[in-house]
Amino acid sequence: MDVSLKTEIIEQVLKRLEVNGIFLSEKDRREVPISVSGRHLHLSRSDMDVLFGEGSELTVFKPISQPGQFASNEKVTLVGSKGIIENLRILGPLRKETQVELAASDARRIGMKLPVRASGDLSHTPGVTIIGPKGTVTIQKGCMIAERHIHMTPQQALDRGVQDGQMIRVQIESEKGGIMDQVYVHVRDDFAYDMHVDSDDANAFMIGAGAVGRMLI
Amino acid sequence: MDVSLKTEIIEQVLKRLEVNGIFLSEKDRREVPISVSGRHLHLSRSDMDVLFGEGSELTVFKPISQPGQFASNEKVTLVGSKGIIENLRILGPLRKETQVELAASDARRIGMKLPVRASGDLSHTPGVTIIGPKGTVTIQKGCMIAERHIHMTPQQALDRGVQDGQMIRVQIESEKGGIMDQVYVHVRDDFAYDMHVDSDDANAFMIGAGAVGRMLI
Repeated sequence: MDVSLKTEIIEQVLKRLEVNGIFLSEKDRREVPISVSGRHLHLSRSDMDVLFGEGSELTVFKPISQPGQFASNEKVTLVGSKGIIENLRILGPLRKETQVELAASDARRIGMKLPVRASGDLSHTPGVTIIGPKGTVTIQKGCMIAERHIHMTPQQALDRGVQDGQMIRVQIESEKGGIMDQVYVHVRDDFAYDMHVDSDDANAFMIGAGAVGRMLI
Repeated sequence: MDVSLKTEIIEQVLKRLEVNGIFLSEKDRREVPISVSGRHLHLSRSDMDVLFGEGSELTVFKPISQPGQFASNEKVTLVGSKGIIENLRILGPLRKETQVELAASDARRIGMKLPVRASGDLSHTPGVTIIGPKGTVTIQKGCMIAERHIHMTPQQALDRGVQDGQMIRVQIESEKGGIMDQVYVHVRDDFAYDMHVDSDDANAFMIGAGAVGRMLI
């Protein structure tokens, strides 16, 4: 083999190792960017029909960190026993079931007491009345405080030695730092590497855009 | 010595050991009751004069956990660049300096960015305009996010092996639990044993009345 071929092979091998995370430092393996999820909801096709009209579609306000998902221009009003939340933004695209995600402080303000749930797990969650521009629906379940979670791909999980569904702890360095327990690892091919916390967590730990956590695993 | 005198002496010794915490179990030594401090302020004599009238006095709404301290009936309005906080309650008695304690979410809502400070440490804290029923004052400093802290007596500190000014960590068990870092140990003869966290911490960790933390020391 001539020198240039050897060089080419070595470069390709190094590149492959890097892509597969073999070169990840301990620091890079543990660090995770944090996004703050404000209160929002997801809608089913049938609830969308009632709230915004038959066959209506969500329109993109701006993309969010997960590929294909977006904050929509469409908003609704949530009606609790002690108050309402206006201008609650819908995240698209539409989903199989309607799901409302509030912080504990949001929920208390309108008289709701919500359980902590992983997204998609609507078991034993209360319902609520939702008002849209074209109609009103009362869902029988689907309101939750979203569990703290980290999105990642199967490769990223492998690199970090964690598995889908695992609960881990994440260290937060800040003026009012600490450790968040019960952080759910959510693995899917199309996920971007990102930890999601709610606005109460962001306020308590005093973190905002650009925050980084360290997984304790 | 007769038997009854011996019994009496033994009982007195045991009682003294118990009072001094020698009999505290590891669990009791580590556990601390948690109180949630909502936003509030303390006033100096001179600011009280301006806001409520010359020589006016705070009146007791209800006692709080620390002996001699109380939530007063008197309230003021705080003016930030982006909004106001109405009905902000004053904690009595009057202090040497006016001090405003907000949660990070309160501060952001009215356009203030505040540092975390131990109570009484007003260094490099911003001021604010305060409106009372009889007048208005603009303080040049004194607004803060109160540092998480634990009140205790010298004996309680001794029993737990901690010292005044020490920063410790406290474990919170809840649906959204974790560890609070940077918890300040505040020791004084007249303190009641109690940890204070702000409303953002209470919301994020989902704790309320009757919550208990575990000191990691």
